[in-house]
Amino acid sequence: MESVINCAAYCEGRKTGNVELDNISEVLKQSDRFVWIGLHAPEKEMLSKMQLEFGLHELAIEDALRAHQRPKLEAYGDTLFIVLRTAQLKGPRIDFGETHFFLGLNFIINVRHGSSIPYTDVRTRCESTPHLLKKGPGFALYAVMDAIVDQYFPVIDKLEEELGSLEEKIFHERFRRETTAKIYKLKRKLLEVKRAVSPLIDICNRLMRFDLKLIDEETRPYFRDVYDHAIRINEMVDNSRELLSTALEANLSMASISQSEVAKRFAGWAALIGVPTMIAGIYGMNFNVMPELQWRWGYPVVLTVTAVLCAVLYFRFKKSGWL
Amino acid sequence: MESVINCAAYCEGRKTGNVELDNISEVLKQSDRFVWIGLHAPEKEMLSKMQLEFGLHELAIEDALRAHQRPKLEAYGDTLFIVLRTAQLKGPRIDFGETHFFLGLNFIINVRHGSSIPYTDVRTRCESTPHLLKKGPGFALYAVMDAIVDQYFPVIDKLEEELGSLEEKIFHERFRRETTAKIYKLKRKLLEVKRAVSPLIDICNRLMRFDLKLIDEETRPYFRDVYDHAIRINEMVDNSRELLSTALEANLSMASISQSEVAKRFAGWAALIGVPTMIAGIYGMNFNVMPELQWRWGYPVVLTVTAVLCAVLYFRFKKSGWL
Amino acid sequence: MESVINCAAYCEGRKTGNVELDNISEVLKQSDRFVWIGLHAPEKEMLSKMQLEFGLHELAIEDALRAHQRPKLEAYGDTLFIVLRTAQLKGPRIDFGETHFFLGLNFIINVRHGSSIPYTDVRTRCESTPHLLKKGPGFALYAVMDAIVDQYFPVIDKLEEELGSLEEKIFHERFRRETTAKIYKLKRKLLEVKRAVSPLIDICNRLMRFDLKLIDEETRPYFRDVYDHAIRINEMVDNSRELLSTALEANLSMASISQSEVAKRFAGWAALIGVPTMIAGIYGMNFNVMPELQWRWGYPVVLTVTAVLCAVLYFRFKKSGWL
Amino acid sequence: MESVINCAAYCEGRKTGNVELDNISEVLKQSDRFVWIGLHAPEKEMLSKMQLEFGLHELAIEDALRAHQRPKLEAYGDTLFIVLRTAQLKGPRIDFGETHFFLGLNFIINVRHGSSIPYTDVRTRCESTPHLLKKGPGFALYAVMDAIVDQYFPVIDKLEEELGSLEEKIFHERFRRETTAKIYKLKRKLLEVKRAVSPLIDICNRLMRFDLKLIDEETRPYFRDVYDHAIRINEMVDNSRELLSTALEANLSMASISQSEVAKRFAGWAALIGVPTMIAGIYGMNFNVMPELQWRWGYPVVLTVTAVLCAVLYFRFKKSGWL
Amino acid sequence: MESVINCAAYCEGRKTGNVELDNISEVLKQSDRFVWIGLHAPEKEMLSKMQLEFGLHELAIEDALRAHQRPKLEAYGDTLFIVLRTAQLKGPRIDFGETHFFLGLNFIINVRHGSSIPYTDVRTRCESTPHLLKKGPGFALYAVMDAIVDQYFPVIDKLEEELGSLEEKIFHERFRRETTAKIYKLKRKLLEVKRAVSPLIDICNRLMRFDLKLIDEETRPYFRDVYDHAIRINEMVDNSRELLSTALEANLSMASISQSEVAKRFAGWAALIGVPTMIAGIYGMNFNVMPELQWRWGYPVVLTVTAVLCAVLYFRFKKSGWL
Repeated sequence: MESVINCAAYCEGRKTGNVELDNISEVLKQSDRFVWIGLHAPEKEMLSKMQLEFGLHELAIEDALRAHQRPKLEAYGDTLFIVLRTAQLKGPRIDFGETHFFLGLNFIINVRHGSSIPYTDVRTRCESTPHLLKKGPGFALYAVMDAIVDQYFPVIDKLEEELGSLEEKIFHERFRRETTAKIYKLKRKLLEVKRAVSPLIDICNRLMRFDLKLIDEETRPYFRDVYDHAIRINEMVDNSRELLSTALEANLSMASISQSEVAKRFAGWAALIGVPTMIAGIYGMNFNVMPELQWRWGYPVVLTVTAVLCAVLYFRFKKSGWL
Repeated sequence: MESVINCAAYCEGRKTGNVELDNISEVLKQSDRFVWIGLHAPEKEMLSKMQLEFGLHELAIEDALRAHQRPKLEAYGDTLFIVLRTAQLKGPRIDFGETHFFLGLNFIINVRHGSSIPYTDVRTRCESTPHLLKKGPGFALYAVMDAIVDQYFPVIDKLEEELGSLEEKIFHERFRRETTAKIYKLKRKLLEVKRAVSPLIDICNRLMRFDLKLIDEETRPYFRDVYDHAIRINEMVDNSRELLSTALEANLSMASISQSEVAKRFAGWAALIGVPTMIAGIYGMNFNVMPELQWRWGYPVVLTVTAVLCAVLYFRFKKSGWL
Repeated sequence: MESVINCAAYCEGRKTGNVELDNISEVLKQSDRFVWIGLHAPEKEMLSKMQLEFGLHELAIEDALRAHQRPKLEAYGDTLFIVLRTAQLKGPRIDFGETHFFLGLNFIINVRHGSSIPYTDVRTRCESTPHLLKKGPGFALYAVMDAIVDQYFPVIDKLEEELGSLEEKIFHERFRRETTAKIYKLKRKLLEVKRAVSPLIDICNRLMRFDLKLIDEETRPYFRDVYDHAIRINEMVDNSRELLSTALEANLSMASISQSEVAKRFAGWAALIGVPTMIAGIYGMNFNVMPELQWRWGYPVVLTVTAVLCAVLYFRFKKSGWL
Repeated sequence: MESVINCAAYCEGRKTGNVELDNISEVLKQSDRFVWIGLHAPEKEMLSKMQLEFGLHELAIEDALRAHQRPKLEAYGDTLFIVLRTAQLKGPRIDFGETHFFLGLNFIINVRHGSSIPYTDVRTRCESTPHLLKKGPGFALYAVMDAIVDQYFPVIDKLEEELGSLEEKIFHERFRRETTAKIYKLKRKLLEVKRAVSPLIDICNRLMRFDLKLIDEETRPYFRDVYDHAIRINEMVDNSRELLSTALEANLSMASISQSEVAKRFAGWAALIGVPTMIAGIYGMNFNVMPELQWRWGYPVVLTVTAVLCAVLYFRFKKSGWL
Repeated sequence: MESVINCAAYCEGRKTGNVELDNISEVLKQSDRFVWIGLHAPEKEMLSKMQLEFGLHELAIEDALRAHQRPKLEAYGDTLFIVLRTAQLKGPRIDFGETHFFLGLNFIINVRHGSSIPYTDVRTRCESTPHLLKKGPGFALYAVMDAIVDQYFPVIDKLEEELGSLEEKIFHERFRRETTAKIYKLKRKLLEVKRAVSPLIDICNRLMRFDLKLIDEETRPYFRDVYDHAIRINEMVDNSRELLSTALEANLSMASISQSEVAKRFAGWAALIGVPTMIAGIYGMNFNVMPELQWRWGYPVVLTVTAVLCAVLYFRFKKSGWL
């Protein structure tokens, strides 16, 4: 059974040793112990075993099996079932995964699906602060949640950076077609992160206030810390979304302005070509009596006059921004 | 009376047999029984019979007859009246229907109107899990609601797919006229689905919290499951709506940008045609004294100069994106 | 006193006869009676009489006199003062009116202002169901409110139809100037209906929950029915508003796209005219030595070449959508 | 001390006479009296005197001195401090001012700053209805608030009128530059009025529900009346704002459409000039062998053909809206 | 240890003298004393010392060390941890900083990070009003918060001024490219200020209502004052944001309108050049029989006719706004 990453018992915040799945009930008979089990993409049989062992609710088991849930917290009698979405940068892409938790009085099970950091580091860090871990499985829950939420900060930083480079493009470059597509794609990503993060606020809020004995009084401020981070990520996403909307509108403005500039420059040059053409046309007429044509200096004079006219136009256009 | 699809009594979650409509009161004298009746587009007489049999409220009966209600939950004394909208994909179209429920302590009646899957499968599935169905008519309600809500997932998937193909069109193709119309139509569909689904959240919420004995304590987590699905569908719709708004704006941006590009290319080619025309015009003038005209190589020189000029312009325009 | 349309006493839901205004106090001494008075645009004296007779509050009387109120429900001691806005289609126009109610334990007064259906039909319908009307003046209030709210459905249908024909215009026709103006006007109408209907939701809500004895327990579900209709109308208006916003944006997109198409076609035709002009210009030059001019077939060859060139351009433009 | 506009004592709703500031404490010893003081832009000393006399809170005094507050209601122990913004039309401008109130059990002080109507009329009107004024200083507060709120109706009417004339301009005139600027300015004004009025709703709401003895039970319906007006003004402003947003978008649409029309007309005329120029160019070529040139009727035939061509083009363009 | 700016004990609102960090516990044994410590960017050791001395919570200490928090108020048992963001104008830039507070029954610690005014002036002002400062450390908290919030007013004034100058640019100038970029940047700044200020409202609200003995009953109105300022700043920011959105749209409208004007002027001048060119072209044709060419006054007549035609066009264009 490879899906079991880790299964250990803790007493007074100290690891008492790894536990075989089949010995769990034995271990839990001691009232001061709790078990922390880490699963990764478990199969149906494994989850059924857990269900039997800890009396988990059928609906929660189904959700844990299927994954693709939205973040949520559900209380089933004495146990909590929590779903969180995890995010990780994989080059330019954001990979989303899911982690589920079953939390009881003397056990915590975390179930990883898809892309996410492994939680062995988190566990090690917890084990190094037994005075905190002894607060029970609620603290283990906090530790993993904290690690999950902290993974969002680099994601947001990346998205804010993308927004920054889009701003650069909108206001200083000219390939607007790709810029528009990029704005749209960034919007898509922001919405996805938003959907993953915003339910967290409510989840933490409920963990902070939970009137069950599952979350120790002293552990609650820690969930407030996660709550605080979730709110900050949420705010950053909202901020970026609002800026992005403005950027999209600004992009349209810029397109419209640059269109106007094209029209102006075109008009200017059209005049500079049209005027000599017109003058040349006039002296191309075949009237028998056109005195200018007989003049000795007619040709150079007309050429000069035309050139001067064009120069005057050129400078006036230049000055008024039409060229 | 064809509108009766099914009418059976259940005891301890097991079907005790089909019941004649006229025997219902007889059956319900046994306190551990409940009846589950399935109707399809019933006529007035049939509903009046039900009203008499189960003491349903006149206003609920009227609603059940007329259909075209919005999803809602109404308590009339000891019975609940629930209206849900059903949706089904019929090729490119979404067909909406309605299902109404009357729920009492020992009966449940579901009334189908318009397009929807039949609920015989649901019933069969329920009958195969008597340990759940014995929770009473509330569980039967859950089973049908769950089936209805699950029908929305393929609908949403279809709409998200349509959005995806619209994105493709906006950013990579050029027939914008139809694209705009399609964006608008997709918006219309999304709003329709939204109106059908969003009241579900409130309905499930009330079923989860209902302080009546109608919904068994143990059945409530099941409604939370439906609630969770309703929220997910709702979120997907909202997400698509927000993306669609952005897509509409992006479409406008693209139209504006492509207009700008048209203007640029036109300006470029106009210059490439205008310059030779101007030069030709000059040498078409009829001045007596125009030395160039007498030169042996005048014509080829002017042609060459013009060609070179045009080539220079061509490459400069090409480089700066005006062609 | 023409403003009194109707004034009758009811006992056990049955009309006991019309009552003279001056005999009202006499009639109301019998505890099982209530009076239902219908007024139309009453003058100050009439309202003062009512005020005296039923102990109505000065501020309510002022409002009832002035009209042009927003829909509201106000409790003054033991009496309720309710203001509703009525709407009626008059050809292409929506005519708004107002109906006010004074509701006490044993009386109901409805005061019509401006355009609205008369309520004699409603009264007749009530009198034909004495088992309902015996629930007291609260039921009479319901009956009139229901009639008022039902008047909004044809109005909304009309507005939705207008939206439909606007969509047709936006996506298939070309006189955009009028379309824009019509979109704006439809928005105006929708906002007006919204303002008339949306306070109704709150009013019905309060009537459903009212902890006074004015509204009988059994009458409350009827107000829930009105509430349901008000919500439906409201939703339809909101839906249309959101679609209208999208339609306005789509209209802008279409204008921008059609502008782009104009520019393309213009550019195409300009090239088709510009190229022959340029070639003709070249052979219009007066160089002494231009061998082509002396050729026997120079003229037809140049004409043919030009024609072929234009044909090639024409087909390329046609293919790439520039013509 | 010119800042004292008025200072009178009232008993049973009747004015017992003007009071010297220094005699106030004497007067207030009689429990059935209250004092109503009207100040205008008072100096620090005057307010300090009031503070001492009535035990007002230092922070309220500071606010009353500085003005430029937002509308608010603050309870300091037994006294209320209320700030309202007043508005007045001064030709095309809206002049804003402020009025502050200190309300105690047996006193009311109103402090005017900036532009506002004087409240002597209000006071006279109150004195003419002693049966109402005897309800205490709360009624005096109502009377002044009512006068202040009523001043907003002409302001709103003016703004709605401006909106109407903007609509006219958008859909029927062509100087769009000024129209856009005017739309923006109207938005500015609407926001300013909104900021002045919207806190009023909350203030009235609190006065209606205040569980202190300051506001007499019987006076509360009067504050509901002010509340109702505030809501109406607020709704009118919101309505105008939403219409204005739509108007701004419609204006953009119109600009885009008129641009499209300019382009079409230009294209049409360019063709009408370009075609003869092209034909003339062809017959201006200098080929030796161009049979048409020798024909007797060559010139008129070509002229006629050209004219007919132009006429055909003209009518086709006219029909298809390009001219 | 340079990070300690100030550390003094107060008794009855009067400073009893500066205190060495190590003597604090000694001083606090006297129940009527409180200590006010001012830190600036303290190091870990210093904060650990504080934690030990006052029993602060580990999580709060971590936050105080790291800075870059969002404004918040957190209660840890008997102490409050408050984070505020400070803002200062540095030329055209807004510099943000942070100030954290630890508030206990007999101590207050303020920790400054980044740009902010020093709080020595605030302290001096407090010491000059012992009757207020004797209300305890809660009053000291108010004094510093008030100073922080007041720093936002010049910031907002600056932003409103920038908005004003943008309006000027949008409606009266023509360099739209920079204007668009500036609108975007102003939006960015407004969002940043908004994020710094809006949580303040909730924080003050909680301080006003706090049911702990930390905030003295008499100090609460002072927090209401801060609350009021926070709301005002918030309103000003929201106002500017809404105006800015409108300004961005207006800017787009103006760009579109000016594009339309460019097109019109171009069309006008193109006609004025095209018409003479066409006429000249016609008389440049080489037909043998073109009677006009032989006429004595042919040339001047054609020139004059052309000039008159152009003049007529010029004035018609001028009148109809095409030039």
